[in-house]
Amino acid sequence: MNEVIRFMKSHRSIRKFTDKPIEDHLLKEIIESAQWASSSTFVQAYSIIGIKNPQTKKRLAYLCGEQPYIASCPVFLVFCADLHRLKMACEIHGTEMVGEYTESFIMATVDTALASQNAMLAAESLGLGGVYIGGIRNNPQEVSELLKLPEHVYPVFGICLGYPAEDPERKPRLPVEVVYKEEIYDDRADLEKIREYDKVISEYYLVRTKGKRNDTWTRQMAEKMQKETRPHMKEFLTKRGFLMK
Amino acid sequence: MNEVIRFMKSHRSIRKFTDKPIEDHLLKEIIESAQWASSSTFVQAYSIIGIKNPQTKKRLAYLCGEQPYIASCPVFLVFCADLHRLKMACEIHGTEMVGEYTESFIMATVDTALASQNAMLAAESLGLGGVYIGGIRNNPQEVSELLKLPEHVYPVFGICLGYPAEDPERKPRLPVEVVYKEEIYDDRADLEKIREYDKVISEYYLVRTKGKRNDTWTRQMAEKMQKETRPHMKEFLTKRGFLMK
Repeated sequence: MNEVIRFMKSHRSIRKFTDKPIEDHLLKEIIESAQWASSSTFVQAYSIIGIKNPQTKKRLAYLCGEQPYIASCPVFLVFCADLHRLKMACEIHGTEMVGEYTESFIMATVDTALASQNAMLAAESLGLGGVYIGGIRNNPQEVSELLKLPEHVYPVFGICLGYPAEDPERKPRLPVEVVYKEEIYDDRADLEKIREYDKVISEYYLVRTKGKRNDTWTRQMAEKMQKETRPHMKEFLTKRGFLMK
Repeated sequence: MNEVIRFMKSHRSIRKFTDKPIEDHLLKEIIESAQWASSSTFVQAYSIIGIKNPQTKKRLAYLCGEQPYIASCPVFLVFCADLHRLKMACEIHGTEMVGEYTESFIMATVDTALASQNAMLAAESLGLGGVYIGGIRNNPQEVSELLKLPEHVYPVFGICLGYPAEDPERKPRLPVEVVYKEEIYDDRADLEKIREYDKVISEYYLVRTKGKRNDTWTRQMAEKMQKETRPHMKEFLTKRGFLMK
């Protein structure tokens, strides 16, 4: 196993951080690493807002569904899908941007995610840790106002970054055969494999909580997916110029 | 610069491959590395279909907009956003999945992209190279039929993988100050920085084509973004159970 893969396979979310700030040159290295991810026809359709101001972080912690580690991490990165810059390019050349299609939304969202994964891994390789915050989509309108995001920009997720003050275990992933399929999507063996995985996850929780939590992956998923989540997203996104067609 | 960041910053798309196949254990290592990316509340809402069959690759090369490297690469990976498996979890527990919201679409699309970036970087760290294929969304219905994707699964992009038979230059990214902003989205300095970047990209093309191609980033973007692309995506996705609300 090489260094790159070793760091990938060491990943776990970190939610407790020491007081040590992140050095500016490291933060720059992380952002520059993010930029080297692939980008759909080179649009580079994302922006990253770095938040260090304690008041802003406190407000974001609340807006993201009371997640205290957003306030306690030294740097909170907000990853935004961004077509605004492409509109600037159109204006320079006297053309008009067609950005309201679902395709542009996918393109910008994927670009943002690719960059973020490089950012997370680069941070981990530098001794930092972090956690993704999908809760940024709990109140996307308020977040957009707070960070002064223009039209055609939306916050996809955040990442809390800092020096780890905890050392949690890695959470076992689905069996590789369930996630990876050859030639066609054949799910006939999946049910059995997923039930085996439930046992692995159950054991993970029992050990981690010293017997207090007994849970499985499918039960968690069934509970999560039976509820509507963030039903405001469609209206919010169309207001911001996305997903209209 | 550590090994991880060095590999990130060495990234460029590879479209020409040697005849050498990818060893099975390396392919497995790549997929397992992908799985260690973060996942929104651990849904792991993606699947990867590995295509080696020459006929299928040839057909996909055509469906993706006549991209011959899909046929010539030893392995073509199709990355799919996948809520189907979560529906299985719901069925195990007798609940019904609510998956038609825009939020579920974002969640699955982001999960897919995060995993793919690990896959790409892991592959590069093992001496392989590749290129993302957004063209999989040119004919997503036909691709879905060919790969027998069930409802609640859609192909987000592909990746051609193989041993590089070319050594292209890295393509300079936007200035870091344009992509990264502190505390709020402030774009007042962006226009000037983007114009400077246009000069960098112009130089890149001139050197690379020995003076034949004179182009800038903003001109490319203006041309691309004035056209509607893949206007079928919304209808396709709603038919597959996504983005209905």
